[in-house]
Amino acid sequence: MSIPRNAFQQMKMIIRDQSRVLASEEDLVSYGYDASFGFYLPDLVVQVNSAEETAGILKLANRFKIPVTPRGQASSLSGGPLPVKGGIVLDVSQWNKKLIVDSEDLVAVVSPGVVTAQIDKAAAKYGLMYPPDPGSSQMSTIAGNLAENSGGPRCLKYGVTKDYVIGLEVVTPQGEIMRTGGRTVKNVSGYDLTKLIVGSEGTLGVITEATLRLVPRPPSSRTLMIIFDHFIDSGKMVTKILTSGILPAKIEMMDGASIRAVEAYKPLGLPTDAEAILLVALDGHPAAVKDESEKIAEIAKNTGAKEIKVAKTDQEAGELWQARKLVSPAIVRTKPTKISEDATVPRSKIPEFCARLQEIKMKYRIDLVVFGHAGDGNLHPNIICDKRDKKEMERVEKAIEAIFHAALDLGGTLSGEHGIGTMKSAFMPWEFSPEALDMMKRIKTAWDPNNILNPSKIFPVPGQRLVLSE
Amino acid sequence: MSIPRNAFQQMKMIIRDQSRVLASEEDLVSYGYDASFGFYLPDLVVQVNSAEETAGILKLANRFKIPVTPRGQASSLSGGPLPVKGGIVLDVSQWNKKLIVDSEDLVAVVSPGVVTAQIDKAAAKYGLMYPPDPGSSQMSTIAGNLAENSGGPRCLKYGVTKDYVIGLEVVTPQGEIMRTGGRTVKNVSGYDLTKLIVGSEGTLGVITEATLRLVPRPPSSRTLMIIFDHFIDSGKMVTKILTSGILPAKIEMMDGASIRAVEAYKPLGLPTDAEAILLVALDGHPAAVKDESEKIAEIAKNTGAKEIKVAKTDQEAGELWQARKLVSPAIVRTKPTKISEDATVPRSKIPEFCARLQEIKMKYRIDLVVFGHAGDGNLHPNIICDKRDKKEMERVEKAIEAIFHAALDLGGTLSGEHGIGTMKSAFMPWEFSPEALDMMKRIKTAWDPNNILNPSKIFPVPGQRLVLSE
Repeated sequence: MSIPRNAFQQMKMIIRDQSRVLASEEDLVSYGYDASFGFYLPDLVVQVNSAEETAGILKLANRFKIPVTPRGQASSLSGGPLPVKGGIVLDVSQWNKKLIVDSEDLVAVVSPGVVTAQIDKAAAKYGLMYPPDPGSSQMSTIAGNLAENSGGPRCLKYGVTKDYVIGLEVVTPQGEIMRTGGRTVKNVSGYDLTKLIVGSEGTLGVITEATLRLVPRPPSSRTLMIIFDHFIDSGKMVTKILTSGILPAKIEMMDGASIRAVEAYKPLGLPTDAEAILLVALDGHPAAVKDESEKIAEIAKNTGAKEIKVAKTDQEAGELWQARKLVSPAIVRTKPTKISEDATVPRSKIPEFCARLQEIKMKYRIDLVVFGHAGDGNLHPNIICDKRDKKEMERVEKAIEAIFHAALDLGGTLSGEHGIGTMKSAFMPWEFSPEALDMMKRIKTAWDPNNILNPSKIFPVPGQRLVLSE
Repeated sequence: MSIPRNAFQQMKMIIRDQSRVLASEEDLVSYGYDASFGFYLPDLVVQVNSAEETAGILKLANRFKIPVTPRGQASSLSGGPLPVKGGIVLDVSQWNKKLIVDSEDLVAVVSPGVVTAQIDKAAAKYGLMYPPDPGSSQMSTIAGNLAENSGGPRCLKYGVTKDYVIGLEVVTPQGEIMRTGGRTVKNVSGYDLTKLIVGSEGTLGVITEATLRLVPRPPSSRTLMIIFDHFIDSGKMVTKILTSGILPAKIEMMDGASIRAVEAYKPLGLPTDAEAILLVALDGHPAAVKDESEKIAEIAKNTGAKEIKVAKTDQEAGELWQARKLVSPAIVRTKPTKISEDATVPRSKIPEFCARLQEIKMKYRIDLVVFGHAGDGNLHPNIICDKRDKKEMERVEKAIEAIFHAALDLGGTLSGEHGIGTMKSAFMPWEFSPEALDMMKRIKTAWDPNNILNPSKIFPVPGQRLVLSE
């Protein structure tokens, strides 16, 4: 579609500063992508910086039936910020002025464009912590992060992102500004619109301000690397840790393929014949951390670990974590396209899920590496491929279907932290009954009767399937 | 209303066991109350024990336009299970067979009628814990607890009840059975219907099964009682603890009136000239607990504490907690009616809120005692009165209005953990804008077009006000 001239004129009354309205071809192209798959050209980009501007644009969009897609830094791995139906992209990434930490109320109040990692950094000055730490936290905006409810390693101990959002200012799909929740941790007044909007992938409202819960910063931490010859032992180890009374901040896993990819990319001295590495971070009181770290080493010995490395200093801990951080850059060396999945299974099903992933890898002849947040069952099977190779992409499509099938079969979910977006909407009927999907759609229709806000996300159209090969 | 004969006949096809269908006057009367205020006679009570029965009754109720009110043990303090419009009460309290702890997945799966405290007890056998601990946990059903999202002291460290619910089986208002969420802690597939239904006070669905997240049980705990001459010092103490890197499991507060009421009820040696007591529970690794307890004692000394008692044994801890547990029985000695509020303010506003409460007490000449969960700003101002005294109840109505006004004025909320129900619905427009209330109502209308499920709760009717004096 294109923006009617009339709408464009009215837009000038809403956004006085025309430098924040982008309509040139080269600008529009840069807003056609995210970190997932596919390209869709918007008709117009508006870099909003107030709730009033956002509301004005949504009202305008409803009058002229123009689709609106909110966007932060577009690090989404599921297509959340892709302007699938064209129309207006609402860029909040420049709207980052407010970042207030209130150390007495233990909250942070932030603008939508604030970079996620900055919040924890600001909290640290007051001895506080903002626990959620998605992989993209150094560049992703908090609004995008909340829209996708994306988590990270620390969710294991501290809970998911949603657990830290206690209040929002939101512009509704029809352009009304509303506040949800508040500034108190406990709040049961009315329906919980806050937690409905967090994770709704920008389809139920545009987040224009968030009030986030902070917690006391743990005074010390320690990292262990545990190396296994047999993958299944690493899965058993996770269960043994969590039923021993110890709740680590993080338990991350790398499979043999990840280990070898990293070591080939940058030699760190990782054992290339190992089949699994667990990285465990403990945090809390120094005496507790010391004691728990000894206990975990003991458990590791009794669970067939090949080697246990305990970081003595923060620097050593950083070196151990380097292995995990290099997985993503290492695995894209051989081929240009990376499809990052986040199908999640109940913790006890991790070994079985991994066995199924190996079968899928063989059957469809794909480059598959597996790593991720083993402590909460949220693995990241990554497929390395070349989107120009039609034959390969057809196999990748089938492999992804098989991965989702396996995860759901084991009592898991399509997405642990990346969202559904465009990449997984075709599979929603696999996870949800028609009744559950219908109740979700009723909310969308009741809130956004013109289907203006981020259309073509989450909900499948009849007969839809994943297509990567065209 | 009364149940049409036709509907009654069809009911017999749904509930084969007629002993679970109660229609006698004496049975109906026992279902007219909850722990709040008001009495409403239902027309029929059905003690359901399967999702299919529940679905059948809701379908029937939609056909005949009969209101349905779900009910657990009716310990609600806000009117949630009151059958305001008559019709059918759906009693789930006898439906308590399933209580499965899966120690590998760290979840419990429970029937709706399971008593909340039983879940933590079952988890303890595996070294695990179900943290939410509302005051009524020894008798309230988990379904009622989830419907109200009611918390308790441990929310301070562990988060609110909602944070522990990862999956539900629900019967929709129109009688469809659906599953929401699942068995994984991380799950961002589609809209979060789980967290929308938890806290929706039985107006959006009947919870027929819940999957709850468990955590490792902390290996040790310790309790401190800190006594203050000046109320404001106890508020400062809370802030100092929480910004010192220590996150206690609980920080409970009693004001001077509570202290004196308890001591008059049962002499425990509490200082009747003190103006505040803080009870602090620490849990975690033994070394951490010991060290943190010493730190808190140190902070208390520097914050004007009159006396600090540290429990040496579990038994001593139990004795210290007795003071807090006796507040409720102690304060109802003088008059028969207790109105328990839970207006909640941001933590930093506790001292100011308490000052306002004292003004309200004077102005309206009411018996007011204040105690509760100081650590998260969730106080419980309790008004002791006699509902047969019309004049007094008029003053109580005005005092409650003033309490809500003060809480909202300080950036707080009408309800921290009791819910809105019938008791606070008149005040919803004070907390929420018309836009926010409209978005809540749109969900209710989209899900329950015939307004069958728990009508007359949460949403105010135009011109509604709180009436206790008739």
